Amino acid sequence: MFMPRKVLEEKLVQLLAEDVGQGDVTTTALAPSELTVEAEVVAKDTGIAAGVEEAVILMESLGLKVEVNVGDGKAVKKGQTILRVKGDARTILCSERTVLNLLSRMSGIATMTRKLVEKLRDAKLDTKVAGTRKSALGLLYFDKKAVLIGGGDPHRLHLDDMVLIKDNHVVVAGGVEKAVKKAKMYSSFTKKIEVEVTKVADAVEAAEAGADIIMFDNFSSKQVKQAIESLEKAGFLGKILLEVSGGITEDSLLEYASTGVDVLSMGSLTHSVKAFDISLEICQIH
Amino acid sequence: MFMPRKVLEEKLVQLLAEDVGQGDVTTTALAPSELTVEAEVVAKDTGIAAGVEEAVILMESLGLKVEVNVGDGKAVKKGQTILRVKGDARTILCSERTVLNLLSRMSGIATMTRKLVEKLRDAKLDTKVAGTRKSALGLLYFDKKAVLIGGGDPHRLHLDDMVLIKDNHVVVAGGVEKAVKKAKMYSSFTKKIEVEVTKVADAVEAAEAGADIIMFDNFSSKQVKQAIESLEKAGFLGKILLEVSGGITEDSLLEYASTGVDVLSMGSLTHSVKAFDISLEICQIH
Amino acid sequence: MFMPRKVLEEKLVQLLAEDVGQGDVTTTALAPSELTVEAEVVAKDTGIAAGVEEAVILMESLGLKVEVNVGDGKAVKKGQTILRVKGDARTILCSERTVLNLLSRMSGIATMTRKLVEKLRDAKLDTKVAGTRKSALGLLYFDKKAVLIGGGDPHRLHLDDMVLIKDNHVVVAGGVEKAVKKAKMYSSFTKKIEVEVTKVADAVEAAEAGADIIMFDNFSSKQVKQAIESLEKAGFLGKILLEVSGGITEDSLLEYASTGVDVLSMGSLTHSVKAFDISLEICQIH
Amino acid sequence: MFMPRKVLEEKLVQLLAEDVGQGDVTTTALAPSELTVEAEVVAKDTGIAAGVEEAVILMESLGLKVEVNVGDGKAVKKGQTILRVKGDARTILCSERTVLNLLSRMSGIATMTRKLVEKLRDAKLDTKVAGTRKSALGLLYFDKKAVLIGGGDPHRLHLDDMVLIKDNHVVVAGGVEKAVKKAKMYSSFTKKIEVEVTKVADAVEAAEAGADIIMFDNFSSKQVKQAIESLEKAGFLGKILLEVSGGITEDSLLEYASTGVDVLSMGSLTHSVKAFDISLEICQIH
Amino acid sequence: MFMPRKVLEEKLVQLLAEDVGQGDVTTTALAPSELTVEAEVVAKDTGIAAGVEEAVILMESLGLKVEVNVGDGKAVKKGQTILRVKGDARTILCSERTVLNLLSRMSGIATMTRKLVEKLRDAKLDTKVAGTRKSALGLLYFDKKAVLIGGGDPHRLHLDDMVLIKDNHVVVAGGVEKAVKKAKMYSSFTKKIEVEVTKVADAVEAAEAGADIIMFDNFSSKQVKQAIESLEKAGFLGKILLEVSGGITEDSLLEYASTGVDVLSMGSLTHSVKAFDISLEICQIH
Amino acid sequence: MFMPRKVLEEKLVQLLAEDVGQGDVTTTALAPSELTVEAEVVAKDTGIAAGVEEAVILMESLGLKVEVNVGDGKAVKKGQTILRVKGDARTILCSERTVLNLLSRMSGIATMTRKLVEKLRDAKLDTKVAGTRKSALGLLYFDKKAVLIGGGDPHRLHLDDMVLIKDNHVVVAGGVEKAVKKAKMYSSFTKKIEVEVTKVADAVEAAEAGADIIMFDNFSSKQVKQAIESLEKAGFLGKILLEVSGGITEDSLLEYASTGVDVLSMGSLTHSVKAFDISLEICQIH
Repeated sequence: MFMPRKVLEEKLVQLLAEDVGQGDVTTTALAPSELTVEAEVVAKDTGIAAGVEEAVILMESLGLKVEVNVGDGKAVKKGQTILRVKGDARTILCSERTVLNLLSRMSGIATMTRKLVEKLRDAKLDTKVAGTRKSALGLLYFDKKAVLIGGGDPHRLHLDDMVLIKDNHVVVAGGVEKAVKKAKMYSSFTKKIEVEVTKVADAVEAAEAGADIIMFDNFSSKQVKQAIESLEKAGFLGKILLEVSGGITEDSLLEYASTGVDVLSMGSLTHSVKAFDISLEICQIH
Repeated sequence: MFMPRKVLEEKLVQLLAEDVGQGDVTTTALAPSELTVEAEVVAKDTGIAAGVEEAVILMESLGLKVEVNVGDGKAVKKGQTILRVKGDARTILCSERTVLNLLSRMSGIATMTRKLVEKLRDAKLDTKVAGTRKSALGLLYFDKKAVLIGGGDPHRLHLDDMVLIKDNHVVVAGGVEKAVKKAKMYSSFTKKIEVEVTKVADAVEAAEAGADIIMFDNFSSKQVKQAIESLEKAGFLGKILLEVSGGITEDSLLEYASTGVDVLSMGSLTHSVKAFDISLEICQIH
Repeated sequence: MFMPRKVLEEKLVQLLAEDVGQGDVTTTALAPSELTVEAEVVAKDTGIAAGVEEAVILMESLGLKVEVNVGDGKAVKKGQTILRVKGDARTILCSERTVLNLLSRMSGIATMTRKLVEKLRDAKLDTKVAGTRKSALGLLYFDKKAVLIGGGDPHRLHLDDMVLIKDNHVVVAGGVEKAVKKAKMYSSFTKKIEVEVTKVADAVEAAEAGADIIMFDNFSSKQVKQAIESLEKAGFLGKILLEVSGGITEDSLLEYASTGVDVLSMGSLTHSVKAFDISLEICQIH
Repeated sequence: MFMPRKVLEEKLVQLLAEDVGQGDVTTTALAPSELTVEAEVVAKDTGIAAGVEEAVILMESLGLKVEVNVGDGKAVKKGQTILRVKGDARTILCSERTVLNLLSRMSGIATMTRKLVEKLRDAKLDTKVAGTRKSALGLLYFDKKAVLIGGGDPHRLHLDDMVLIKDNHVVVAGGVEKAVKKAKMYSSFTKKIEVEVTKVADAVEAAEAGADIIMFDNFSSKQVKQAIESLEKAGFLGKILLEVSGGITEDSLLEYASTGVDVLSMGSLTHSVKAFDISLEICQIH
Repeated sequence: MFMPRKVLEEKLVQLLAEDVGQGDVTTTALAPSELTVEAEVVAKDTGIAAGVEEAVILMESLGLKVEVNVGDGKAVKKGQTILRVKGDARTILCSERTVLNLLSRMSGIATMTRKLVEKLRDAKLDTKVAGTRKSALGLLYFDKKAVLIGGGDPHRLHLDDMVLIKDNHVVVAGGVEKAVKKAKMYSSFTKKIEVEVTKVADAVEAAEAGADIIMFDNFSSKQVKQAIESLEKAGFLGKILLEVSGGITEDSLLEYASTGVDVLSMGSLTHSVKAFDISLEICQIH
Repeated sequence: MFMPRKVLEEKLVQLLAEDVGQGDVTTTALAPSELTVEAEVVAKDTGIAAGVEEAVILMESLGLKVEVNVGDGKAVKKGQTILRVKGDARTILCSERTVLNLLSRMSGIATMTRKLVEKLRDAKLDTKVAGTRKSALGLLYFDKKAVLIGGGDPHRLHLDDMVLIKDNHVVVAGGVEKAVKKAKMYSSFTKKIEVEVTKVADAVEAAEAGADIIMFDNFSSKQVKQAIESLEKAGFLGKILLEVSGGITEDSLLEYASTGVDVLSMGSLTHSVKAFDISLEICQIH
């Protein structure tokens, strides 16, 4: 998910601008215009840092000097300093909340993703954990990058990068087989074709029609096993990627993973984020 | 938080555009270009609907016909239809996720806010529940509106609408008293002045300096009571608004509220949203 | 009205871009591409400098070196140099008018504001002079900042930062009392509530309903006095802020101020600006 | 200055959006969401209406019904209704100030322009009155259109539409003759070339070098006459357009015009606008 | 490449706005403001129509009535009417060039693509013709859609939708094998992985490393055959997609196609477009 | 066509951003984040370099170091290095295509323009070659600048910079004479007036009505001669500029030029660009 710094900077400055509105009235009244301060961005919890690159780009573009103590993807402990920043007091005070909102959402996503990824690794399973497009509007890039930093797979980035046939597409196309065939006929050769199936019986139909990936939608782990058996019988196992989506929790993760599917995707990673608690403290005034 | 429909429409279309990228490759391949379908937006959980106005504005701007079954702020039960939409199949399929992301985030915020508001009302307390600026970047308007729909107070909308002196401002200004006095001297008469205090002792200092609102930051309910007692002795009770912020949970809500403060603000309302589960199902093809 | 330099820079560069269109055809034809020149921005009148920070940010963002001789809010005499700028000749020629338009509008506003503020100060009155939202579209930030630099109060910054009940709101709400009560019930606790009254009789009604600020709209100074007397009798004097708006001129300023109101707001400060005459002269070619 | 309605609409909605910020908190609290009202936009002064087309486009794009009583360029008397508008109360209240700011600036410019144009016409002079680029930033289109509506010439629209050699260009190019010759050599054949001269002696030099238009910068009327005499002797009279700019006032207008120049351009038309007083009154509630 | 009409409309209106600048001065002077006319958009050449949907969306968004005679992808003959449009004369005159530029570029691309596609079809070959990212900046969507309308494959839409390992990536990664393996390890499972090879020997290496698609870069048809033979020996034929890119012309098309590769991609389709000649003629004035 | 670097930078970064989408997935997977490389931008053909300034501005704004070997307007031979760039590998890989698309379109335009310009110069003719508005949407600035670099005249830049009366305007205005007279009456004195004529007979009519420039639309060289004779007889020759447009090819260029017209404008210069072949090769890894 590399993006040139300048492109990212423009996005970030625009997000800050929205928060600033017609000016920061508190900082205007309270902070002198030529004051230099130093501040620390400190974790109030234990987890995985994410959004650090973005925080640095934003703050540096504002003329602040930033020193990174805990980089993206590294574990951070409660009380540990993630960043040190030095520069114009007004600029730091005015951008504080934007920086923290970015860091705490992204670190929250990365922390949960990492937890799940490690749970699988500890169980010696190489199933992937993936995000979905169930994200905060406008923040897709940041949410997906946080999943990646946590060790997960970002999955589809928006509507133009893969063919993902959902239930409603199947309805419109007239069934799984027709949908996959139509997709193969009318899509670019550059795209993978994934299809969501809602019944065990549809899995083989999807595979026969030529899908690259099959997503079992809201299947119990038992149903997943049945679907895999059918695919095995039909000779598709190992030739097609298998994903489960819907209803997977931290608790049921291993149960689903042990069925042998390749990917477990979880909307909750980005639609129900638990913010990671981070604060910024001014520690020195020059 | 009224905003002319056209202004809101532009924001929403831009959010959709980001998700579309260079085009919806799945819909292109699978849905015929002149097909009309009907779909239902259905709650998969029980809670408070929010984002309905936004969903309608977005879908209508795309040329779809929408019928509202459960309006903003109304209770919705699991399985209940919130909206019915009719129109071009490709347009519905392409905007589905944007509409659902909007509805599930906003309904999630409204549902939690309403739960807390009703808990207070049931306990015959008229303490307000308020949001904060700890929100998803770029979605402040939607997050604040959802708090409002849930029955909460949106609090400050961004950096230009009130003077809110946070800990770092106090540090820069050289103490609570100096900070409040500076704020009174250099701010517009149109702004209320709120100051965050971190010690019981600072509460009276803040009141004497002329603050309109005092925020007790990360106080235990016991500390809140002590602060209120000090303010009472000093004759400020009833003349100044009192807010608690930091560390309030669903469980400790009543304990804090029963201290007699006016407002309980909770960052978790918008920084750690639990998405409300909603789906869109195509139910008829014309 | 602090805004991070980078955010302001983007606004300013966009304003310049509009003036440039598809390119500066005069400068292209006449100025060599590698020429360095020095220029002076000189006052052609006597007044108060404003827009200097903006001019510096814009010119520095274009790669020019700028030296400030008279900063924002300082008095400047006819013939005095405000800024010295050095750099690429084409860039200076191409941005000259944008820089001057900014400086002359903002300095014009600051000069008039300061004149009124000093008139009050000389008369030992501490009445505030305030701006309004009667401004040039899109330039609210710059107009308000110029009022502030002149020593005035910026008043409301746009529609989201205070509740200001105007005559038409009163009509829709069904009277002053109802309007104020509705505002208190449905607005955030973070907002002050101001109400515009058009009759002496309404002043007490507004105060009793709980307004924080009362604006006497198009009152004669005699009517203002009557309103103040009524408020005094009702015990509200000193507990509520009083503002007069409408029809105040430089001549009637002291008469209104001597009634004892807190604020005199004047639309003409920003809707009928007399531009401050400033020019840019290239003084050296390298 | 025709611009497709849709293009203009986007500009206008963006200007409104800036004023709205995160929402109109007053209207939200006071006006019910389904209320229809009627309002009149009334002149509080006598002059020339301008900005009417823009006001209509903006209000119609917001879903309001508008009836025009006094169109662009028509004389309007104090107390006369310019527009009648009907529709959603919240939308009218929220867009009121944007509409009025547009109308009062543009009508102010048109009123002054017309006054000068008529003064010349009454004196049987066909000299043109023209605007300049000394305008409010970002509002060039609106300011120029208002000049046009008032009967003036908009002059250059921005930096790409003609070659206008100003004093600083002459300095950089090394004299009037060199500047004009360079312009003729390096500019597109589609552009007129105008040059600003600061001395009588430069007028003939400019004409000989091939300028299409000569601008006498800050000349007294006497100097203008001398320059015209020189041009006459040199055989250029009638073959080149002559413009005076700088220091022209309502009082000196006829004196300058009677010298026989073709155009009098005045920065004050757009840099020192006297707003035309207009208000919006809700007159009926449905 | 479906995109909701409203999203496309915004893109198109923005492109028009750039051409309009500060207003269409010719139309302003010449066309009355209330005149309705009818016009025909006529092909001056024979080929394939494309851009029709975009032209309709733009013109309808401007309030014009449009009737389509030849839709996207249909053959059009010299002299044939593609569209009939009726509406405001000024709007038609002002948008004419934008509409024609869109239609003639897109139809030019579609015409050439179709020509190549039919050449292959006539030779009973099912090789695909594909575009590349060698396009006009900012027009990727339109260029790709035109390729699609012509019967070609749009290939990658931008940098986020597939992994395409070009020569420079191979250099940075340290060889074809390492590059493909790294791509498989660090990319999302949702992406196909294509690798560009510059030597016959690299083809098998790429296949063994697990590439989904191999692109033969600037290969002669003889080299392509050799590469295919190697892949056949190694057992990869039919299991991996093969693409040739670089140096393919209309003349060498069949020679390359007959080697048995799956895709022939040609930068010239979009980087060296021959515009399709189309004009707009006003045919009736109301 | 000078534009301040910062303004141009914003345009260029926006064009890059569109290509990047949600991130460059190939570069993310393959290039380490701290790697510095050097690359050369090499011509694969012989022609005229253009777009070099833009490439430098874009790459420098991304933090890369660029060294120019062949500047804008200089001849470049096949195999010659145009630019050397050094910096972050990911940034170079991600911006490669945007930079090359810019350079190859602009150099393609400049190369063809120069070829025609030199053909005329070699024939000792001083006829100008000019571009038109038949350009790629949104790229007008770049296309026009490339024409200029090639030695051509950019002609009109968009709709606001000159009055160009096309056939459809003539139809609406009711004939050539009426059209030109209307244009003279209602246009700013700052604009030249050009009129397109389609019959020999209209040329004198246009001249008599006062046009500054006459464009012979789709005339044979014989018709051009006839028109010139008519104009000569009527005494207009040398007093009015003459342009031919439509159907001019490289072959017929001299034939048209030898008629004595001043300008030959050719849509093909920008609507049917042959891209100049340029590639970027990483040559060193640090």
